[in-house]
Amino acid sequence: MARFQPKNPDYRAISIETFEAQRAMTTLGISIARLEPGEVDLAMDYSAAFTQQHGFIHAGVITAGLDNACGIAAFTLMPAGSGILTVEFKTNLLAPARGQRFTFRATVVKPGRTLTVCEARAYAMHDGAETLIATMSGTLMALPPREAAARDGALAAV
Amino acid sequence: MARFQPKNPDYRAISIETFEAQRAMTTLGISIARLEPGEVDLAMDYSAAFTQQHGFIHAGVITAGLDNACGIAAFTLMPAGSGILTVEFKTNLLAPARGQRFTFRATVVKPGRTLTVCEARAYAMHDGAETLIATMSGTLMALPPREAAARDGALAAV
Amino acid sequence: MARFQPKNPDYRAISIETFEAQRAMTTLGISIARLEPGEVDLAMDYSAAFTQQHGFIHAGVITAGLDNACGIAAFTLMPAGSGILTVEFKTNLLAPARGQRFTFRATVVKPGRTLTVCEARAYAMHDGAETLIATMSGTLMALPPREAAARDGALAAV
Amino acid sequence: MARFQPKNPDYRAISIETFEAQRAMTTLGISIARLEPGEVDLAMDYSAAFTQQHGFIHAGVITAGLDNACGIAAFTLMPAGSGILTVEFKTNLLAPARGQRFTFRATVVKPGRTLTVCEARAYAMHDGAETLIATMSGTLMALPPREAAARDGALAAV
Repeated sequence: MARFQPKNPDYRAISIETFEAQRAMTTLGISIARLEPGEVDLAMDYSAAFTQQHGFIHAGVITAGLDNACGIAAFTLMPAGSGILTVEFKTNLLAPARGQRFTFRATVVKPGRTLTVCEARAYAMHDGAETLIATMSGTLMALPPREAAARDGALAAV
Repeated sequence: MARFQPKNPDYRAISIETFEAQRAMTTLGISIARLEPGEVDLAMDYSAAFTQQHGFIHAGVITAGLDNACGIAAFTLMPAGSGILTVEFKTNLLAPARGQRFTFRATVVKPGRTLTVCEARAYAMHDGAETLIATMSGTLMALPPREAAARDGALAAV
Repeated sequence: MARFQPKNPDYRAISIETFEAQRAMTTLGISIARLEPGEVDLAMDYSAAFTQQHGFIHAGVITAGLDNACGIAAFTLMPAGSGILTVEFKTNLLAPARGQRFTFRATVVKPGRTLTVCEARAYAMHDGAETLIATMSGTLMALPPREAAARDGALAAV
Repeated sequence: MARFQPKNPDYRAISIETFEAQRAMTTLGISIARLEPGEVDLAMDYSAAFTQQHGFIHAGVITAGLDNACGIAAFTLMPAGSGILTVEFKTNLLAPARGQRFTFRATVVKPGRTLTVCEARAYAMHDGAETLIATMSGTLMALPPREAAARDGALAAV
């Protein structure tokens, strides 16, 4: 049984559509691996193009995956027509992002009318073993449908 | 007069070399615009490849720039031969990353033998006007030279 | 000239009243030392009752001071009748809270209709020398007057 | 079976002793409710002395409880003679701290030789119902025994 009841019966299609509208996700090679109300797994294969000085995936790229997982997890619980903005997040880096494949797993901790708090964890799959490499806690904001339409996602008036 | 006195007389060359060893920076189009002891500006041009659903630069990419600025700012003050790791960072997003060019400006708040705390701000240049779009506070860790060499940057034993 | 223009001409009286309505501030011995639109200094004398195991002020107490400074700084810029809630904050501890007197200095980084982002720094005055001991970045939320009255500050429906 | 194996066989006694050496904990009425390797619950009764303007417990006091739970949880896994310092923490406030009794529950996410990352949650017990009111993620630092003795917990040289 799902922990959360989505307000938007069409949450799955609109969440996937919003995710796929982000060109950065295509460029980084990040895709949706699992999508439930309030819970999302994203997956990314290793790419040398996004490494830091030791050949591991860059912390900023790991953060992009964690942030997106949080955003989509929060978005699944928002009313139809809402826009979504990230307010803030904090990342703790626990181990080097060494591996062939990475998972970004987010869950909603507290949904709200305006603000939703999520937590996420990043895992690296390296030679068959999975390691927790980073954690995130973040705050997402729902833009009411009218504002989402009018401002097209601009944070300026928030 | 510089606020900080670097311990490594060769700090400039080694900081640039470490920055340039990160393939993610090349891929994202981020470069060093200014480098002083404990202070770094990075710059990035807009690229549609790294946008989110509204055509603005993705928060994860902004975070990658802020994190790198913090890392290099901290690194300029570390002893010769040190390795550097990001422990954690928190980002507040203040305005959409809309613009032609972006600056990531980091300063060391408190250097330390093991841990260094930095703050950074991201600015968007849009049609000639500069807007503060994000802030970061983060903690960086120096790996002593012997460990940096032996572990090649792996966080595992931290 | 002030950086910010308050929306509420009565901001000073209402900010002081809100601050003083917090019994925790009296118990901790924290008072307002300076109050401008978007900028607040709080002050606290050393008290052995609030120390950790080394006789320095406890990090949680330092955080209470920083959080309050942020909250009041944000509150000075909100419309008349607003309620205020802390959404989140992050604290970096830079040095032990050793001293006879402590200052918590907050400034608004970005005011907003719903969310306001603040930064704050804590300083210890020890034998005449001032040391930066902690930093905070935080997000505060304005409750619209009608909700503030109806919910009396409860976060439940946020 | 415990998730973590303590390095110090005497971890229980020394953790309790360190906790009790903090006068702030006595003043705030916070005590240890459960202590396992890497896992700690603290408990606190409501006290009007530590309330904010709506009569709920102040966020700074909630943070003090969360921070202490993290610190003791991390400390249980450190070698004999270590000192402990909080490096940073971030708190998300989810609901008002309304209730008769509060629990601060911390678990170690990643223990390390130098740095340990913990997560904690605060719960309010109000008329028999428990509500999640706040989350924390934080970084703690072990001071090696020799330094812990020499510096008596001072962060200055960190």
